[in-house]
Amino acid sequence: MGKKVGVVLSGCGVYDGSEIHEAVLTLFYLDKAGAETICMAPDMDFDTVNHLSQEKTGEMRNTLIESARIARGEIKNIKDIKALNLDAIIFPGGFGAAKNLSNFAEKGPDAVVHPEVDRILNEMVLANKPVGAICIAPAAVAKALSSKKPEVTIGSDQATASAIESAGGKHFVCAVDQIHIDQKNKIVTTPAYMLGPGIKDIAAGIEKLVNQIVSMA
Amino acid sequence: MGKKVGVVLSGCGVYDGSEIHEAVLTLFYLDKAGAETICMAPDMDFDTVNHLSQEKTGEMRNTLIESARIARGEIKNIKDIKALNLDAIIFPGGFGAAKNLSNFAEKGPDAVVHPEVDRILNEMVLANKPVGAICIAPAAVAKALSSKKPEVTIGSDQATASAIESAGGKHFVCAVDQIHIDQKNKIVTTPAYMLGPGIKDIAAGIEKLVNQIVSMA
Repeated sequence: MGKKVGVVLSGCGVYDGSEIHEAVLTLFYLDKAGAETICMAPDMDFDTVNHLSQEKTGEMRNTLIESARIARGEIKNIKDIKALNLDAIIFPGGFGAAKNLSNFAEKGPDAVVHPEVDRILNEMVLANKPVGAICIAPAAVAKALSSKKPEVTIGSDQATASAIESAGGKHFVCAVDQIHIDQKNKIVTTPAYMLGPGIKDIAAGIEKLVNQIVSMA
Repeated sequence: MGKKVGVVLSGCGVYDGSEIHEAVLTLFYLDKAGAETICMAPDMDFDTVNHLSQEKTGEMRNTLIESARIARGEIKNIKDIKALNLDAIIFPGGFGAAKNLSNFAEKGPDAVVHPEVDRILNEMVLANKPVGAICIAPAAVAKALSSKKPEVTIGSDQATASAIESAGGKHFVCAVDQIHIDQKNKIVTTPAYMLGPGIKDIAAGIEKLVNQIVSMA
């Protein structure tokens, strides 16, 4: 049997949910690595952004229902998943990680992490199981695990890096096709679309992250 | 400069729009092949399906706005794109191809293809430029180009294959990791999630399709 790897989604679309390319490439490389994927998302409402105009619409959608689009319906409520069900967990990026899984986009270092995301992250680290985070998702991970002084990437944006350091993390500059490994905490991160520029570039980093996570699991 | 390849989307989600994995893998392999991607979709409303319960919600959404989620905002209205702007065109699958780009899901061989999709497909074939279609999308292509007796795949579903033959196409059985090439019409197809079973399996066929399309362009 393959390793069981959780993938935490936060909606479906870069501006209000999970970044779709990052999420799909994560699922693709997990399948290539022989892992069994367990998609999950919190059950909460979020403000919708029109991805054509990039303006808020005023419409509310639900993270679990919209994330099910990426997962082709095969998705769990994160509250029903415990670390003992998983060998590892990965968080793709997208603004959903900073607006739904946490409010890092609004609050920076004072962000609050969604209680179920906070719970599962702390369970995983306590169980010494690996955690992967992509793009902006390392900000939520750093906040939830601040007592562990986690080492994470965020690309090269100085303001975001400073906010992560203020939140208790340690920021590492990293190229888009590379990963940073926090050996002590078993946290693996890659900048993806925090740097870009294109899907083949982010794929290189995500492939390395997935293979590292599966090998540590 | 890379080849300019259009990618026609129909929403964002397998049950009411573009199949997200197929669309993202198409964009990924096009970028790897050095092609320039031009995403497009029709500007029309469609019935939304809750991807968690797989039930209709009664809510209407817009194909162009929802497709922009997959395209990260970089998308055109298909009515503004002509064959002379493109070297090739690819249609990912998802029920959107059979409910929005055409009404094949409802009408079978009597389906009507969206007028702008019909127009660009006939322009492309007239210009001797290659057309790719994935999963259920070959049904819309076969209907729009029925006078050319196009050769297409649809997996192994006999009812769908029969409907395509009645619509004027010629169906070929094809494995998920393979493609069928209609050399005369320059049409390349692969079954993807019409067969499945998983994302690494469909990726193999989509990679071959994209590379074949780029090499013919």
